[in-house]
Amino acid sequence: MDLIYTLNIIGTFVFAISGALTASEKKMDAFGSAVIAFITALGGGTLRDLLIGSQPVGWMLDPNYLYTVMAALTFCYLFKKWIVKLTRTMFLFDTIGIGLFAVLGVQKTLSFGLSPAIAIMMGAVSAVFGGVLRDVLSNRVPLIFRREIYATACLAGGGLYYALTFTQLSDSLTIWIAVVVVMAIRVLAVKKGWGLPGIK
Amino acid sequence: MDLIYTLNIIGTFVFAISGALTASEKKMDAFGSAVIAFITALGGGTLRDLLIGSQPVGWMLDPNYLYTVMAALTFCYLFKKWIVKLTRTMFLFDTIGIGLFAVLGVQKTLSFGLSPAIAIMMGAVSAVFGGVLRDVLSNRVPLIFRREIYATACLAGGGLYYALTFTQLSDSLTIWIAVVVVMAIRVLAVKKGWGLPGIK
Amino acid sequence: MDLIYTLNIIGTFVFAISGALTASEKKMDAFGSAVIAFITALGGGTLRDLLIGSQPVGWMLDPNYLYTVMAALTFCYLFKKWIVKLTRTMFLFDTIGIGLFAVLGVQKTLSFGLSPAIAIMMGAVSAVFGGVLRDVLSNRVPLIFRREIYATACLAGGGLYYALTFTQLSDSLTIWIAVVVVMAIRVLAVKKGWGLPGIK
Repeated sequence: MDLIYTLNIIGTFVFAISGALTASEKKMDAFGSAVIAFITALGGGTLRDLLIGSQPVGWMLDPNYLYTVMAALTFCYLFKKWIVKLTRTMFLFDTIGIGLFAVLGVQKTLSFGLSPAIAIMMGAVSAVFGGVLRDVLSNRVPLIFRREIYATACLAGGGLYYALTFTQLSDSLTIWIAVVVVMAIRVLAVKKGWGLPGIK
Repeated sequence: MDLIYTLNIIGTFVFAISGALTASEKKMDAFGSAVIAFITALGGGTLRDLLIGSQPVGWMLDPNYLYTVMAALTFCYLFKKWIVKLTRTMFLFDTIGIGLFAVLGVQKTLSFGLSPAIAIMMGAVSAVFGGVLRDVLSNRVPLIFRREIYATACLAGGGLYYALTFTQLSDSLTIWIAVVVVMAIRVLAVKKGWGLPGIK
Repeated sequence: MDLIYTLNIIGTFVFAISGALTASEKKMDAFGSAVIAFITALGGGTLRDLLIGSQPVGWMLDPNYLYTVMAALTFCYLFKKWIVKLTRTMFLFDTIGIGLFAVLGVQKTLSFGLSPAIAIMMGAVSAVFGGVLRDVLSNRVPLIFRREIYATACLAGGGLYYALTFTQLSDSLTIWIAVVVVMAIRVLAVKKGWGLPGIK
């Protein structure tokens, strides 16, 4: 699971950067940027932990998450100009982060004895609610409610993960397959411009 | 209590529709609509459960709530034109939902050993915070903070429910009396245009 | 600790007034004002309690907090004209409230066995998130994200409190020193116009 932990930290780092960049657009100061970066990176998992009753919430028990957000923030201060050009790299890590958060969220919720439907939903909550909270705190309608397909990708990947737990595959292979599926759906959705219809 | 459970589900259904209609006004996609519908229907009870420490929160342990929100959403996609004409029917169910959520919220909070004042407050939170969260996520000042009297109706009905628990009346009769009082106050408030004064 | 309890109540009172005044600016009715006052005063501590898993959250177990918010609201209705002139007195109490909430938040989090870094962070959350939630519910970008230095003051005071727990000083003296440091930094920051740079 070491590689998974590492990628989890990388996902946190990239999500924190996305939060810090939003804060910078909104002309927030260092404190505001830190809060938004933190909430973007860890808000989804926090909400999941509160709902399932896993307290103290995850990042409180492992200081590396806090340090990762601080590192991301410092990185943003130093290299902002350079980061905004790295859209492809950022998108890649962001997609890895989403896939991992979604699948690990399903795994954690199942470990609390909750039903598969709820677990798959909590996977998506882990992956996307950080971004929702970022947008609410920045006073805008959450982006994801208007045009992204990635919650759907999370639900599909989470469902697949659950299905694969009934097979002979090892746990880490199961996680990887599901994460790759989330990533593939998201990349395809962005490339092909897929979207969900609204209520007309 | 079967009738109460059924009405609880109906309340959830109607609240979910109100959320989906708001999402549609804001031109959200299917995912955004689902999230807003879910939060409108179940957000108040979720907040109550978090505050009193009842975790996993209620709807996680009974999949019918999740299915009800999905059914409401499907219903909205199929019959939106027809729903918006049914304002009276919607208002009736909405009012039943509010009354029930308020009274059952008081009951649950008391069962956690908390004081009556807190329980009555949690009843109102159960009934109205779904709508508050819907408005925050849709980036508008919560409607209820500006003109509705129904939180007051919830507090009155919740207080009455508590008072009636000291009488010889059966629990379900007690619930019904309190629910009807919440509904009556709300209907009267809307008909007569009652409102609370702001701070001038 | 009686003096600390009293000041905690005074801090709650002043925070509630600041919430009620915001609600009045946004033309909310009495219910909206009560909710905003309550959340401004108690939202920070509530979020801290949820994150560390201290449930039912603090104010549910001591009715004085609820009564204090109601008293503040009544006070606002009666004396609004007079209050808005008392900016210096309000600022003083607000600063005492922030200092106390920050330091007592650190103390409570440490008592749950969490790490110092998390405890100091939770101190700042206790002190400032009430205001953040007030702003989100009033549909504006949280003020503190744009120009106040007081979260930094809370972090400094919280860190000092933790450091002083290793000395021979009594617990209440330790609290007072830390609170005074928070207050001093904030007063200096306001007088000198200190601010944190944003990400450019």
